[in-house]
Order: sequence, then structure tokens, then C-alpha cells
Amino acid sequence: MKKNTSTKDLGLSSNERLFLKNKSIFMPKKYINLKPYGLKIYTFNAGFKKKFEDLLILIFDQPVNSKIVYSKTSTPSAPIIWDKKHNNGSVKALIVNSGNANAHTGDKGLKNIDKYVSNLSKLLNCKKNEILVSSTGVIGQELNPNLIINQISRITKKQSGDLLDAAKSIMTTDTFPKILVKNVKINKTKFKIYGIAKGSGMIFPNMGTMLVYIFIETDLSKKILNQLLKDNLEETFNSISSDGDTSTSDTLCLFSIKKTKLNFNSKRNYNILCKSVNSLMKDLSLNVVKDGEGISKLIKVNVLKSRSKKQARNIGFSIVNSPLVKTAISGEDANWGRVIAAIGKTREVINQNKIQMFFGKYLVCNNGLINKKIDLKKLDKYMKNNIIEISLYLHNGTKNHTVYGNDLSYEYIRINADYRS
Amino acid sequence: MKKNTSTKDLGLSSNERLFLKNKSIFMPKKYINLKPYGLKIYTFNAGFKKKFEDLLILIFDQPVNSKIVYSKTSTPSAPIIWDKKHNNGSVKALIVNSGNANAHTGDKGLKNIDKYVSNLSKLLNCKKNEILVSSTGVIGQELNPNLIINQISRITKKQSGDLLDAAKSIMTTDTFPKILVKNVKINKTKFKIYGIAKGSGMIFPNMGTMLVYIFIETDLSKKILNQLLKDNLEETFNSISSDGDTSTSDTLCLFSIKKTKLNFNSKRNYNILCKSVNSLMKDLSLNVVKDGEGISKLIKVNVLKSRSKKQARNIGFSIVNSPLVKTAISGEDANWGRVIAAIGKTREVINQNKIQMFFGKYLVCNNGLINKKIDLKKLDKYMKNNIIEISLYLHNGTKNHTVYGNDLSYEYIRINADYRS
Repeated sequence: MKKNTSTKDLGLSSNERLFLKNKSIFMPKKYINLKPYGLKIYTFNAGFKKKFEDLLILIFDQPVNSKIVYSKTSTPSAPIIWDKKHNNGSVKALIVNSGNANAHTGDKGLKNIDKYVSNLSKLLNCKKNEILVSSTGVIGQELNPNLIINQISRITKKQSGDLLDAAKSIMTTDTFPKILVKNVKINKTKFKIYGIAKGSGMIFPNMGTMLVYIFIETDLSKKILNQLLKDNLEETFNSISSDGDTSTSDTLCLFSIKKTKLNFNSKRNYNILCKSVNSLMKDLSLNVVKDGEGISKLIKVNVLKSRSKKQARNIGFSIVNSPLVKTAISGEDANWGRVIAAIGKTREVINQNKIQMFFGKYLVCNNGLINKKIDLKKLDKYMKNNIIEISLYLHNGTKNHTVYGNDLSYEYIRINADYRS
Repeated sequence: MKKNTSTKDLGLSSNERLFLKNKSIFMPKKYINLKPYGLKIYTFNAGFKKKFEDLLILIFDQPVNSKIVYSKTSTPSAPIIWDKKHNNGSVKALIVNSGNANAHTGDKGLKNIDKYVSNLSKLLNCKKNEILVSSTGVIGQELNPNLIINQISRITKKQSGDLLDAAKSIMTTDTFPKILVKNVKINKTKFKIYGIAKGSGMIFPNMGTMLVYIFIETDLSKKILNQLLKDNLEETFNSISSDGDTSTSDTLCLFSIKKTKLNFNSKRNYNILCKSVNSLMKDLSLNVVKDGEGISKLIKVNVLKSRSKKQARNIGFSIVNSPLVKTAISGEDANWGRVIAAIGKTREVINQNKIQMFFGKYLVCNNGLINKKIDLKKLDKYMKNNIIEISLYLHNGTKNHTVYGNDLSYEYIRINADYRS
């Protein structure tokens, strides 16, 4: 508690140590610098963290259309309450700080946002409701708006950075920045889709947020942006789980930058765009899981031939969230009995005598019974992989769904229990 | 996987080591030998485990009335399917084996039960449907009925044991036997209620079961037995969670032994009995949580002034099942921000600005805001206790509910991931 309530200790010294010592095994080997069209990127060390950049101010040359989804939590953070109340989908600037989540801070939390938003809106000569805000970090601590206001005054003298700077500045316990780009070509028009993200579920001492910002360099109506989210959210960011915990601050934004112009009422054009957005959101969401705390394995669960998409999803999440399945996989044990128990606890109507289950390509259970012919040596070898895929055929319908999670290791406990030592 | 599929390794060598090394800090200091009226207790090492007793055969002098509840899993074990199909509430004998759960074993699993039940029914000259069966242990392994039949033939030469023997014989990863007795006095009639239990949620490599047997030394109709369960289950065994995982085999039985006879249509008599049953079930259920794998803290969560009992329950379980709350408490950190996040993820309708939260007697959060006046030294000291009590006032209604869980420690990971090393 001390660590979280004294200002002196508010910074990320544990994180800083983590960042140096324990990078995820899934960290990309290299990054490229990316500069989306029509936006300026400013990052600062504002003082929420001891070291490292902790404030991102992103300014669009022209206001852009956007579509945003938020955590479904019933204890939302102040930035979520603020954005929902004010923003109407037109965005001139985005302010994100890391190190303090401004969550559970009451009316004071909202007033503090108003202070720094007012300040930036004067500088940019835009409306307050054209500025979006996000915060990630410690819950329940008052956020000092002056830390942000002090940096806003420095913007005019500062040079714009690139998207990798932005991805780094929003990190908390992340061990690597999450940044991706996809190229799109529709007819003869080329443009790019960029995405940055942070966080994997509820992380760190009180650090609770997943933040995702996606920039599409083509002119899209709010209706099309909405459709893109509708078509892609379920299979990507809504199909991952790190620890089953929902944050108070999760936010995902799609921005449309008017670099190019195409007719997206054309079904063909829309489908090409949608596929690229899906690919970016899928890969970015996997990057989030791949940086789960203390991760040693990525777990992919395919629930197949299910009665409904909803059933497949419920069962999939029950499996990747089961502490017993997660620890078994951490211990490289193909413990299919625990998977059966995790199916059962959903109380979904299934016929257990029809269940067929594979670990990788290895059949462990058929017609609800153990596969006695299995080659245990090969299966044991398979379990040493970094990515473990469980395919579960329910044989009670035609619907499929895939979810992703990670294992539960000593490292997770170390990070979440022993961070003070 | 190897460990679970080779017969050689089916035994509980890991458990045996655990049993010697890592007893729960909550283990009772001493036990007394108990012998309920009108029943014979036989325990054996039948060969499901390498060492230790692993088979309990319990024979009532006269068939008794019983009422049973089972796991709500959709992948029930063979014993649950068998009991539900056959038993009508009249019980002459109970067979429980530990080491093999006879779960996910298809029709063969049921046929194997029929073999050993037939054998005992001939010996006792009773109907097959007067014999109850339970199994706990590895999931998905064929159970060899001859291991049980071999021991049945030895019953007539064997001396009846006591209830502590019975409690020991049904253990799997339990580090101590769970056994309790309560004295009841109604008017001038005295009798006892005994209970034994095993297991804490889904435990051990594939060991999945909580089993509870309660013996009431008074003549009760099935209707009264049913009422006793209805009145007491929610607040006791349905208010505990060790890891949020539901087993394939959970079973709780109430037995009425006709040692005494009273009028339980009398409201006064029923209430005295009900209170004693509640007290026994409450204490026995706490014993189960107190032996959770790798436990270092018992967590008690009181959700108070809630809109409904259901809401209080949902929020309570969300808190005790949150890996982030569990690890924080393991690390002796009064991390109330994580509690707020766990409330939020239930999506229950609440007003976060009204939340008041205590760790022990220490107010950490009031009107939804951090209590800045808190004495952190005293709070830190409180967090070193073995039992941590979180009291959460929602101030949106009048209903209260209390749930119990335990922390998530290195030891849990060691037991569940590294048991093969």
C-alpha cells in the first residue's frame, strides 16, 4: 500500500527493473519508425513515472472522424466518463498519460481532466469536446493536472516524434512497445493502417488498462468506422484474456485520417479495408497477450462445431482463464482433464461423450474418452513449444470461435505479489 | 501427461511429499476420534494411491434417509451420473475411492461402478440403488473395479474404524483431514452432527473434487433433509472459492441416522437443528478453504448494503477469484484499486462514488475516494495477519453476503505446474 500512496514511490521503479530484466520471449526483434500522415506526436516525461516518457499528446492537422469502445466495467475511470460525456466522434487531439489511471477519483478526477483539456483547447483553438483523454496507471490516486499543463506549454518549441515514441510513452508494465502497420491497396489507391497498444488485462500494482489507437489513412464516415469495429472487435480484442480481470480504463479508438478518399459504400472496397483492419487488430491484440505478465506460453484455444458462437466463446474463455489449465501449460503438461473441468464449469449444454480434443495435432481425447494410442513422447515434446494450441470439437453444432490467453507462471506471482521486495 | 497416464505413476507420490512437507498453516492442532451411531467404517489401501488409505466403505446398520447435492458441471463424473440415476434417498452403504475420479470415462465408467456396487449389494443383501458412490482423483482414467471388489471381500474379517480414518481415506492433495462434530440439545434429547470433507475446489494434477458427508443422529424425513440443505447451502459451501474452478465430481450428502426421534414439524425444534447444521457446514466449508493449495492467507469478503443478495454474491466472488486481488493479498498489499476493478468487472449496477471499503477495521476508501488519513503503518501490519477481512459497503440497498477464498501464492504454481519435478 505504501508503495502506491506515497508520491515519492508513485513511479515505475519496479517496472523499470522489469523492463530491463524480464522482456517477454515474444518481443519483436526490431521496430521501424512510422509516421502516419497528418498528425503530430509529442511525448514527454511529465513526472507520473520517475524515468521514461509518460505523456503522449497527439494532434491531428485537421479534426478526424473516430469511433471508440470502452471497458464494460461498472467502475469506469474518469477519462472514460469524460470522453463518453463530451466526445461526439470528431477528434483534434488525444492526451494519454501513463503512471496514474485517474480511476476512482470522483468528481475531482473529472475537474482535473477539464483543467488540462481547457489548456490544450486554447492552444489549439479547438473545442474541448474535440480532445480525447486516456489515463493508465495507479488506481485511486488524484491526478495532478499541472504535470500535463506544464508540458502543453512546451509543445510549440518541440519537434514531432514518430509512432514508436507514442507506443513507448503509453507503456506501464509492458516489456515491449506494441506497434504495427498494414498496407492497403484498393484499385490504384494505396494507404496505410497503423496501430499502437499497451497493456495486457489488469496489470501491475494497480496498473489497469489496455489502450489501443488505430489510425487509418483514408476518409471514413462515422458509420463506416462503426461498422469496422462491429465486424472486427469480437474476433480480435474481445477474444483475448491475460488474467480474466477487466480494467477500469480499457479504451480502443479508430481514427480516420483524410489522406485518401474512396467509396466505401462499394462492398468490394469495404471488404478489402475490413480485411486489413481485421489483420491489424488481430496481430495487435496478439501482441498484447504475448506481453502478459510473466508469460512463458501463448495459449490458443479453438472451440469447434459448437451449438453457437456464444457457447464456443464461453467455453474458450473458461479454458484460457482457468488457473489450473494455465498452470498445467506453464508446467508443460497436456492436462486435458483440467480442460474438461473448465468446459463443465460453464454449464453450457454439451454432450461430453462427443468431445474430441487435440493438443497441437495430437489427439488426446476422442468420443469423450482418453486416446490410449497417443505417443506421449511426441506430446511431451510438443508441450515445450512457446505457442500451445488446443482444438476442441464439441460436435453439437456448426459454430467456431478462437480465443487466446497465456500461461500462469511463478513470474506472474512475483510481479503481482512481490513487487515491493 | 506421462505422470497421469502411466499406471505406475497414478499414485500420489507428489501428494505424499506434499503431505509431509507443506501442511496448511491453518491445520488444526489436534483431532479426536469420533464414532457416529449406527454405522461401520472400513478403510483400505486398495491400490489407487501408492501409500495411504484410498478406499472408504461406510455401512449403515439400517438404511437411512439422505439428501444429496452435486456439482452443477456439464461434464459430470460417472459416480454423479450413476447416483443421480439410481439413488432415491434411501442409503445402506457408501463407497468412496480417492486417486481416480472415474470422470470422463464414458459408459465404461458406469459399467465399472455397477460391478463393484453389485458385489457389495450381494454381501449386504441390499438393493443396488441403496448404495451411493463417489470418486475423487485423476480425470479421464479408467477405474479398475477389481481394486474395490478385492477389498469388499475383506470387510467381514475387518474391524470398523472411526470417522477420522474415513476423513483421511478420502484425501487427495488435502494437507489435513477435515472432520467436525456439533452437539445438539433439543428439549431433553441430545444428539450429535458429524461432518467430514475433502478437497478445495479443483485441485492437484487432475484431482478434482470436493466431497462432503454429514451424519445427523436423529430421524429426519427427506423433506426435512431437503429443507436443511436449502436453508444452509448458500451461506456455507456455496460461499467458498479456492481457485474459481468447478470440479466434475463435487458431492455433498446429508444422512439422517435414527438414533433419536423428535418432532421437526415444530418450528422451534427445526430451528435449533438448522442452526447446528449451519454451524457445522460453515466450519467444515472454512476448513476446505483453509486447506487451499499453497494457501498463506484466508480471505473473507463481506459485501454489505447491496441491492440484492445475488449482487452481493457476484461481487464477493469476483473479488475472491481475482488473480490480482489474490496475489496482492499474498504479497501483503492492501491494494484496494484491484478490489474496485474486480467489482467493476461484474458489470453489476452500483454507484462507485458511494463505495466504502475497509481492510480489517481500516477504512481505505470512502465515498469512492481514497482515505488520505489512513495510518499506513497500522494497515501494513494488519496485512501480515493470516486472515484478511475486506468489508465493502455498496450503499445501494440492504442485502449482505459473505464469501471466503484464499490467496494465490508461489506455492499454488509449484503444486499445479511443477509437480513433476
